[in-house]
Amino acid sequence: MKKTKEKVNAAIIIIGNEILSGRTQDVNVMNISFWLNELGVKLEEVRIIPDIESSIIKTINEVRKKFNYVFTTGGIGPTHDDITSQSISKAFNIKYDYHNEAYAILEKYYGKKKFNLGRKKMAKMPIKASLILNPSSGAPGFIVDNVYSLPGVPSILKSMLGGLSNKIKGGKKILSKTIFVRTVESEIAKSLANVQRKFKIVDIGSYPFFRLGKIGVSIVIRSTDKKKIDECYKEIVNFLKKKKINMIGKI
Amino acid sequence: MKKTKEKVNAAIIIIGNEILSGRTQDVNVMNISFWLNELGVKLEEVRIIPDIESSIIKTINEVRKKFNYVFTTGGIGPTHDDITSQSISKAFNIKYDYHNEAYAILEKYYGKKKFNLGRKKMAKMPIKASLILNPSSGAPGFIVDNVYSLPGVPSILKSMLGGLSNKIKGGKKILSKTIFVRTVESEIAKSLANVQRKFKIVDIGSYPFFRLGKIGVSIVIRSTDKKKIDECYKEIVNFLKKKKINMIGKI
Repeated sequence: MKKTKEKVNAAIIIIGNEILSGRTQDVNVMNISFWLNELGVKLEEVRIIPDIESSIIKTINEVRKKFNYVFTTGGIGPTHDDITSQSISKAFNIKYDYHNEAYAILEKYYGKKKFNLGRKKMAKMPIKASLILNPSSGAPGFIVDNVYSLPGVPSILKSMLGGLSNKIKGGKKILSKTIFVRTVESEIAKSLANVQRKFKIVDIGSYPFFRLGKIGVSIVIRSTDKKKIDECYKEIVNFLKKKKINMIGKI
Repeated sequence: MKKTKEKVNAAIIIIGNEILSGRTQDVNVMNISFWLNELGVKLEEVRIIPDIESSIIKTINEVRKKFNYVFTTGGIGPTHDDITSQSISKAFNIKYDYHNEAYAILEKYYGKKKFNLGRKKMAKMPIKASLILNPSSGAPGFIVDNVYSLPGVPSILKSMLGGLSNKIKGGKKILSKTIFVRTVESEIAKSLANVQRKFKIVDIGSYPFFRLGKIGVSIVIRSTDKKKIDECYKEIVNFLKKKKINMIGKI
């Protein structure tokens, strides 16, 4: 039996002036990250860059060497500002032209008569790419090497992730446990640091929150090792009790 | 009179495992971007990176050379996983220790008796930094050279931007006009590309949307030149009329 890789990582490149201008709120990072967590892949970097060819090429070529998987979102639609496919072709030095399989899918989806130039553009990509099928709106995403190109529209992107899962070989799944407490960070900082020092392979994060006018802290314990998470959890609960800090929930 | 710089740009570095893990939805990009737009500064890149010292140092030193302004969010709180201040000290090779002014502010905010070690940690930063005052919760952000470090909690971050505006020297303000139309992107792709070719200093973006079960496209025209935006707008409205495409709104 093949051993599961300990650690598999990924990066996301969000290509889109609309995110940088503040016009559109990105939600794809969260959706892709949740999906990757389930597959045992840790998202370790995100870049948001403009729709500029040179930026896309440079970023793709830099990031794809550093991570096991790279996902791009946006810029594969029919309009002039959709330049991801041609930029990725250039980054990999693969011809950018009609992809036979993508062309056939889109021609069937729209019907020959309605298959206009704009729609045909969505069949143009690195000609040697593998396709990522799109159950929502026809136009496929594509894979070149370890780079996976997805659309920017969140509902369409989400609908494509399911079919993609079997192409991702993850490592050990990252597990987590969260404790919500009614305190401020500075009251637990020292004790938390002590627990973190004891559990090297566990990540302990501390995040203040404000809800219904009350403040609190979420303590998040993350690791691939469930036993260590449980041990770490017990130590934290112990010091909370000693300090008489109110635990208001856990997940 | 001093001439306004044509173009001033910025990058944001979001430091936080909680964003990468998908646990927390970032909203700081949108808030900072809107604020920068008003000041005539164009956000041109965002990086989301983990709470790892080497990643922070490397990213800071790479990004600060490329952009006029760099904003970091997150990691300046009291707990062990808040390592932005010490990492930025290392990136700039400035001593990381109690900052006199920050110490005085925090001691006054909490009162001598409640000024514990965790809270004192928030007064530690590059000792030569200038402070960014925090009207919400005391703990200041700080400025070293062109790097501005802000907290990750959105409500606190937002409350600190107002006081920071006079420290940012922007260029010409980026203006925009948006047209909402009832069509699909592929129907307007060719005409939009023609208009874009004619107006080089205007950015035309096209973004499909789904609202109340109906599809549509937002056409966004952006430039520092209001006259060009208006001319561009007229050309787009003209071709929409010719194509009998329904304009459902504009802002």
